[in-house]
This record gives sequence, C-alpha cells and structure tokens, in this order.
Amino acid sequence: MKSERKHIVIIGGGFGGIATAKALKNADVDITIIDRLNHHLFQPLLYQVATAELSPGDIAAPIRAIVNEDPNIKVILGEVKKIDPKVKTIYLNNGHSIPFDQLVMATGAQYNYFGHEEWAEFAPGMKSVSDALKVREQLLMSMEEAEQLDDSNRRKSLLTYVIIGGGPTGVEMAGAIAEVAGNGAKHGYHTIKPEDAKIYLIEAGPRILNAFPESLGKKAKKMLEKMGVKVLLNTPVTHIEKNKVHLQVGLIETPNIIWAAGIKASPLLDSLKVEQDHSGRVLVGSDLSIPKYPDIFIIGDSAHSENKDGIPLPALAPVATQQGKFVGKLLAKSERRSEAKFVYIDKGTMATIGRAKAVADINGLEFSGFFAWFLWSFIHVLSLIGFRNKIGVFMTWMWSYFTHKRGVRLITDRSRCESCTTYERPHNELMEMPV
Amino acid sequence: MKSERKHIVIIGGGFGGIATAKALKNADVDITIIDRLNHHLFQPLLYQVATAELSPGDIAAPIRAIVNEDPNIKVILGEVKKIDPKVKTIYLNNGHSIPFDQLVMATGAQYNYFGHEEWAEFAPGMKSVSDALKVREQLLMSMEEAEQLDDSNRRKSLLTYVIIGGGPTGVEMAGAIAEVAGNGAKHGYHTIKPEDAKIYLIEAGPRILNAFPESLGKKAKKMLEKMGVKVLLNTPVTHIEKNKVHLQVGLIETPNIIWAAGIKASPLLDSLKVEQDHSGRVLVGSDLSIPKYPDIFIIGDSAHSENKDGIPLPALAPVATQQGKFVGKLLAKSERRSEAKFVYIDKGTMATIGRAKAVADINGLEFSGFFAWFLWSFIHVLSLIGFRNKIGVFMTWMWSYFTHKRGVRLITDRSRCESCTTYERPHNELMEMPV
Repeated sequence: MKSERKHIVIIGGGFGGIATAKALKNADVDITIIDRLNHHLFQPLLYQVATAELSPGDIAAPIRAIVNEDPNIKVILGEVKKIDPKVKTIYLNNGHSIPFDQLVMATGAQYNYFGHEEWAEFAPGMKSVSDALKVREQLLMSMEEAEQLDDSNRRKSLLTYVIIGGGPTGVEMAGAIAEVAGNGAKHGYHTIKPEDAKIYLIEAGPRILNAFPESLGKKAKKMLEKMGVKVLLNTPVTHIEKNKVHLQVGLIETPNIIWAAGIKASPLLDSLKVEQDHSGRVLVGSDLSIPKYPDIFIIGDSAHSENKDGIPLPALAPVATQQGKFVGKLLAKSERRSEAKFVYIDKGTMATIGRAKAVADINGLEFSGFFAWFLWSFIHVLSLIGFRNKIGVFMTWMWSYFTHKRGVRLITDRSRCESCTTYERPHNELMEMPV
Repeated sequence: MKSERKHIVIIGGGFGGIATAKALKNADVDITIIDRLNHHLFQPLLYQVATAELSPGDIAAPIRAIVNEDPNIKVILGEVKKIDPKVKTIYLNNGHSIPFDQLVMATGAQYNYFGHEEWAEFAPGMKSVSDALKVREQLLMSMEEAEQLDDSNRRKSLLTYVIIGGGPTGVEMAGAIAEVAGNGAKHGYHTIKPEDAKIYLIEAGPRILNAFPESLGKKAKKMLEKMGVKVLLNTPVTHIEKNKVHLQVGLIETPNIIWAAGIKASPLLDSLKVEQDHSGRVLVGSDLSIPKYPDIFIIGDSAHSENKDGIPLPALAPVATQQGKFVGKLLAKSERRSEAKFVYIDKGTMATIGRAKAVADINGLEFSGFFAWFLWSFIHVLSLIGFRNKIGVFMTWMWSYFTHKRGVRLITDRSRCESCTTYERPHNELMEMPV
C-alpha cells in the first residue's frame, strides 16, 4: 500500500538540507534525506579539526540523531549516481532507485582547481572530516619529523606552510597554523623555535577577505603579519607539484600545502542537463526551483541564485540555511504560490584570525580584535547543532584560551601518513562564517 | 660535546612508559621516549570509541603534552626496528640509531590469534585509535545498510554481532553493542527493532571474566543475558573466514566480528634474543631487568614477571603503571641496589557491562550493579591523563546517562568502509580495568 502523501526527497544533510527537513517536519508529507555520509558537519569549524583544536565529534552530529524526533523523516546513507528529472527518480550507486514528488538538492560544493585537477593530490582542500584529519596528520607529522632533524633544507621545508586562497578559510587556517607552528615550545617541541616556522598565505587578487569591507581585510592582514604570516597579494600560483608551489616570483618547497582558493558545485548537478554557471551551479528561479522542472529545487552552494542587484549569492552557511527554510515552508503548503520569491537577509560575515583575534562586519558595523573574536565564538557555539556539541566546543575553547594548549594533536594512522603528502581526492569549500 | 649524564631510553608511551618517565623527571638523567604514535592512549576505554560513546581525543593525549614541563625528557616519534643489547643501541626504521645507557621496554602487546593470523583480517581486535575507528565504521555501516533492507538473510547477518573472548574487553564490547544495536529506534533507525539484533559473546572456557571471582562472572553473564546478549561458554571458535564464524556447534554469519580473545607481546622483543614465554613475553628478574642484560628493563604487557605464587602478572594497566614507577625510582638512584624487588599491589578489577551496570572486585569486596558502575566511572575518569580529558569524558558520560544518546556516531571515511570487513592489521589486548 503506497502512501497518498507527497514524497519529498532531500539530497544532502548539510546546512541547506537539514533546514529544509526541519521546516517540513510538521507538514503532511513524507521526507527522505539522502547523504553520502551519516553526519551533518559544521564546516565553518572544520579548520579547527585540521589544526587539532576540536575533535570531529565536536562539530558533527549524526543526521539520524538530528531528525530522530520527526517520524515523517527517513534517512538513507547512500551515494546518488544520477537523477532523471523527467521521470522524477533518483538512482543510487547501490542499484536502488527512489521516486520523488518533489526534490530538494542541497548537494554542496567541492574544491575548484580551475582546470588543474592534478594539483589536488599535492595541495588538498578540506570538505570532510576525513580531509581535515589528513591535513591534521600532515601538519603534525611535519613537526615531528622536523623536531628530529638538525638544520637542513629538509627541516626548513617541513616547517614551511603554504595556504593558497585569502578567503575566510585561508585566513583562518593561516592564523591557526601560526599559533601551533609558531609556538613549538609551548606544544612540547624542544628544537622548533618561533622563527623556524615560515607561513605563507597566497592570494591571486589584490586583497584578502574580499567579501568583507576593505578596511577589515587590511586589519586581518596586519593581524596575520603580526603573528608571523607572510601574506602575498597579487600572487597567482603558476604550478603545483609534489612538495613544491611555483609562483611567478619564485618557488616554495614544502609538503604542507593547503588549497582554499575556490569552489565548484557538486558534479551530480550535471546529470540534470540544465543551465549551469561557470562554477557548475544551477541557475534557479526566484523560488529556487529550476525553470524547466518546477518540482526540483536547488539550494546552498549548488544554486546560482541572484540577489536584487543580480549578483549570485555567496557559498555561505547562512545562505543555505535561509534557502532551506524558504523551500521547506514553500513545500509545506498544499498549494504552490507562483509569486514566492527568496530574499537573502545578510546578517554579516566574520572570520577568526587567532586567539582573541577576529574581524567581523555585522550589518555594516565593523569590529576587530577581542570583541570580534568573542562575537565569533559566541555565534559559532550557538550555531552548532546539538546541546552536547555546544557545551563541548565552548569548554574546549575556554580551556585552550586559558592554557594555550591544543588537545587533539593525535596522529592516529601512520600507515596513511607515511604518504601524507599524497591524498586520495581532496576537495573543499570557501568556508565563510555563518552569522 | 656529549652530556656526561646517563641516557635512559624508554620505548613506548603507554601506561608503563609514561610512569617510568614521570618517576625520573627530577633525576639527573637524560630521557628519550620513543613511540610509533605521538599519543598516549587510555586503552581501557578504547571500546567506548569503537561504540561511538567517546571521541579519540577524549582518551588520548599527545606524549609531548604529557611531558612538556619536564626539560630532561625528549620525545621521538619513530618505529624501532631492532635493539642490539650488546652495543646498547636502538635502530629506528628511518635509519637513525640511538645509543642508551639504560633501556626500559614498555612496548605493550598485540592481539594473539593463536597461530591463525589469517583470522585477523576478518575478526579485528582493537589496540589503537585507528583500529577502534574502523570497528566503529563497521558497526555503524552495518546498521545503516540494514535500515535500508527489507527482511532478508543479508539484513539478519548485518544485525548479528560476534564478540570472541569473554574477558573484560569482550564483556564490555558486548554490553555496549547491545545498548546501541538493541535500541535502534532510540538512535534514529526506524526499521531496526530490539529483537532484530543478535549479539553473541563467545568464550572457549567455562566462564566469562575468569580473572574475577566466580560469582561476579556469573552476575556479569546474567546482566548481559538480560540485555539480550547470548553468552556461549565452552565454545571454541574452529575457523573464521570473511563474514563467517565457525563453531563446533554451528556457523554464525555476520560481517561484525570482533576479536578479544588473547594477546601476545610485541614482536620487537624477539630482537633481544633472550628467554620468552609462550606469549612472547620476556622473562625478567625480580627487579624487572633481563638477567643477561642488567641495563635493560621490561615492563607492562611485554614482561613475564611473577607474583609471589609464581603466577605471571596479568596484562593490566595498573601492573604496567606500578612497574614503570618502580623502574623509574630504581634508575633515579645513582647506585643500583641489587636486592630491589618489584611487588605488585592488586587493588582490584572492574568491568562495565552497560548503562549503570558493572561488576567490581576491590580488595576481595564484590560489587555489582549501579554502585559498581559508579565506582568504575569515577576511577576511570580520575585515571585519565589531563584535566581536559577528565572533564570531557565526565560530561559525555553524564550526557549519555541522562539522554541515552551516543554522540560520536560518525562514519567519516566511506572509501575505507566499503571494504569494512577487511582490515589491514588488527591486533588488540585483553583490556582489563585499572583500579
């Protein structure tokens, strides 16, 4: 006996997908969430997993646990192979197929190497817990090896760090690495002195944090430089190979190369065969559905959705969350209003640079320094899903604020790490801060 | 310029190695700790990582952080290839060699498959964080797949769990799995009913917890059975292959097979070419040194050290800790007292069976139920290294006691998990409880 209720399928358990499901939980519909992994991940804090501040369990929650109280929501762990929008069916890799009445694609994004996919092997980004753990192992192993070496070129390259891309992720990674690598003695490395660490933040454009007001970008640059980070502007990367980053101005040798320079939408969108922009996002109408298929909605990093000035909305958690809520409410209504129109409310952006250092732009008000950091911490703790995560992250941050320690410096998998500099398939995102 | 101070090398950063180093920290000696991984692990709680209760970071701490305040202690991340006791030198895999004046081997143990090493691939044990995470992924993936299947043999086998070995580790794993798998609905699995889970604890001998008083073993068995665990006594495993456990009484089909049946000492000891017992432990004198090489000490799971009745001491954290302290104090003295004699003080043993259920034997006093569980929790939290870990684990246990939730149900690496049932090199230990 098939249910008469409408079946809504949501692909992706990120900010957009969860917001959609939560907005639909009291509606008279059946919902299925499909995700490749079993957990929702608070990606804006993933860099803190990579830099040994937080445990993966602090910023991730099982999707089942999030929607456990909602009997109309079913969760499927599975990889979608393709979507046939004409027959309204999803095909999974395991051979199962799932029909839908309405589909919400919240499939997120992956790192964009702008045609140089071969760089991914040597300059991984971070999109998943697994990616972040690999970066963590790489960074820790480098320090361990350096600790055992006398002065040499190998030692110098092990203590060199290159972060490519001056958006919030790049800035946050550079700041966090400066705190670990620049404070070797505090973390128990006897031979690593602050001046040994060379940290480069490389940006092709003329400024960092270009989604922020210019004055905040300048402040962030100064803060980073005070922490010992060399910020190279107008410096495009020309080539990357194993342990080497080539710039127009020279060559940097290091196994520690992190890519944070751009994203592209999930390749799953290609199977829809509809109009996409240059980074693979699907062009959606004002109600976030695809013009050709009004029962398919695209939200979050996968959607090319424009603001009132015709500029595409950025790939940010708050955009995905607001879009998810909008689509959820729209679908909860039995009658579809054709005039529904999504409007993004920009509450601001923030990036943290280090201990008690951050920049924030809230409704045009600019903050920097301790207060911005406090605001950043407060808002991020509140935005985490689950009471347990909120408490855990809050305690960890307090602890490391007062002790300067990082608790999760674990190398758990040496077999993986002996080939640390070659990752399987790195991909990532410009992780700006949700406000 | 070489230091005139005596150089003591400790291999292994487990309970024994850390205790030795801490006992030596104020001595006028140079100390080097060598470990394959960069962290000390509280192995008695590793099963809680495998069953998604705790994060690895909760029960592990970087060795560097533990000895950070002690300027005479150097930490090296490295794998020891062999030891030449005659020239007092250690050779590392990376080609380095390290001379020592005195050596403390606290190299621990690995799982013993009693001549059936080929079983390891299908029935992994747990000795490291990496092992425990693989088991966690296996258990979670099984439930995820089962949730999507209609009634079938495949579904039945996915919800079947076999734990081999009725020592504390086996008992604790069986209890923890019963809580997760037997409470599918509580954890968000809509189709998994309590009666679907079949959990077998298989023991070759006539009773479980045979290091405990017989009455406690019986109580533990009853508690497990009440939770739905089938405890099979006098049931040796005859063969293990992929997804299959063969017993004399029949065959159990499942991908979820966990080995907790015995340990053997680290194979590194073989390079000493001295007398070893049947499980590879080196026979030591009453001061824990090797009779042939009085400057080499063996402690913990690697040592065959006898109590006053001539029975070898068990592979327990408190034995290793007490031995480490003993050797550290001995070496801190400038003159060696030939009559030094290690005596183990047995403060008791405990095992937890589930939420608010445990058995304990403290100085001959037997406890079971809530009080034993409370005692178990209290002592384990206090025994963790680091204030942050103590607070974190305490909060997590309180949280899950009141909510019945397990927070760390993360499948982080599907690429690894698609071949979940074949692990690289599993090995484990009879993890009894430190008191």
